[in-house]
Amino acid sequence: MVVALADAQVTVVGLGLMGGSLAAALRRRESCRRVVGVTRQASKISRARQLGFVDEATTDVGQALADADVIVLATPVTDIIAKLAMMGPLLKPGALVTDVGSTKRAICAAMEALPRAVHAVGGHPMCGKEASGLAVADPALYEGKRYVLCPLPNTTPDALALATALAEGVGAKPVVLDPARHDAAVAAASHLPYCMAVALVLAAETLSSEDDLAWNLAASGFRDTSRVAASDVRMMLDILQTNRDCVLDALDAAQGSLDALRSLLSQQDDARVAELLAAARHRRMRLFP
Amino acid sequence: MVVALADAQVTVVGLGLMGGSLAAALRRRESCRRVVGVTRQASKISRARQLGFVDEATTDVGQALADADVIVLATPVTDIIAKLAMMGPLLKPGALVTDVGSTKRAICAAMEALPRAVHAVGGHPMCGKEASGLAVADPALYEGKRYVLCPLPNTTPDALALATALAEGVGAKPVVLDPARHDAAVAAASHLPYCMAVALVLAAETLSSEDDLAWNLAASGFRDTSRVAASDVRMMLDILQTNRDCVLDALDAAQGSLDALRSLLSQQDDARVAELLAAARHRRMRLFP
Repeated sequence: MVVALADAQVTVVGLGLMGGSLAAALRRRESCRRVVGVTRQASKISRARQLGFVDEATTDVGQALADADVIVLATPVTDIIAKLAMMGPLLKPGALVTDVGSTKRAICAAMEALPRAVHAVGGHPMCGKEASGLAVADPALYEGKRYVLCPLPNTTPDALALATALAEGVGAKPVVLDPARHDAAVAAASHLPYCMAVALVLAAETLSSEDDLAWNLAASGFRDTSRVAASDVRMMLDILQTNRDCVLDALDAAQGSLDALRSLLSQQDDARVAELLAAARHRRMRLFP
Repeated sequence: MVVALADAQVTVVGLGLMGGSLAAALRRRESCRRVVGVTRQASKISRARQLGFVDEATTDVGQALADADVIVLATPVTDIIAKLAMMGPLLKPGALVTDVGSTKRAICAAMEALPRAVHAVGGHPMCGKEASGLAVADPALYEGKRYVLCPLPNTTPDALALATALAEGVGAKPVVLDPARHDAAVAAASHLPYCMAVALVLAAETLSSEDDLAWNLAASGFRDTSRVAASDVRMMLDILQTNRDCVLDALDAAQGSLDALRSLLSQQDDARVAELLAAARHRRMRLFP
């Protein structure tokens, strides 16, 4: 039995940026009957209530899961996997389990081991900020953003429809994808930009070891190119660990591009340097006109 | 003879983003007596006047230089160098020549060959946008931004004071630097971020050759990390050409950082991956709190 979202209690496990924003969006849009937040930090309970992000918040995951029609796991990827391994016996038959983790193969594989009486759909909303935590949560975070849904082989149409309603219920646009295809695409679209930002900051650190003037001259170009290097380390490490093969492929491609640029520049083959720069500019402008 | 900025005609050669914004800032702040813009495109003359960015605009560079107390060259770097080589005989004795080019060694070397009767100070305001042209010029572009000034060995204190007044006259904060130190620092702070953004876009193009899903999933992380890849190609090629040695050093450092990250990730040495990520996050957060 799958309920309609309007009749559902949605339990959000993890009240950070993603979970806090999801809870807040569901409440603001009156998309479900009731929103319960689960957090390990008692201080977040009153804060989430004050902000109006939840109907109720608790540190008691057992009760919050037992009452839930929809469970959204919004913690780092390896924590989601650990929770999936232990939560089966705590769930109500017919409940839908989903998540907002940034990689999908490992999570969907862990979802396959849930009891047959519960439903599961992997989820990944394509939004975020480099800052983390309930303090930066925003009920508008999901608005107009793509929200990837990965049904399992045995996910029923009703369960997928409920997951779709959840994505739409926070203002996002659902996109149904296979986990492997998702993971390869986000390696290029999201994990590689993070690795490039990290490498940029570390390289600037090396280059400025004798003269720290570079930091004083860093302007909007450095600021934007390095922004995602400020992301939460635990969250990003989990992502890299659970998408290692695709991230390594992406790093190979980036090193290939950097090698090509460096080699042409070093050979003073500036006509071909210009071709590379023009190709990148053209592609970037098509993507973000 | 060096005039006070308030009494000066400032001739801005090149009415793109940087030159148009500089002219507009001088006019809005009433920092000088008169602003004359020089452009090769006749259509820009009426546009610059309509916008109130100049007192007068012309395609006649000869007349605009002959009347100028201060000349600001605001074209791509190799064009600035070409203009410096031919403009000497056209200048009024006592005039100050400066520029807004992004590299300083080659430009300052070209300035050394100007007639002894004129003054010269290299300039590089640390601001910009990835878009270019008069249409995106903005009188507030320079506000609060660092504005590097590179006096030549024979620059007089009066001439440096006038260049300082010009930087302050557009709302920027002057910083006096040696050209070589400037070029090494901006290779890390500005040219490397550009190269990383270009390499990211080219890598994503390679990775998405069989499945273009990655482009559809590109969100704010990809958008910001790749933003400067949309920069004007002619302008950036000039910069890379005139700062080749420093840019190659910066690319070596970036490849070293990427190699380290890739190698640890591939060896599943995730504790040390986490150390790299944490070091980058810490540095980025200190830079942009």
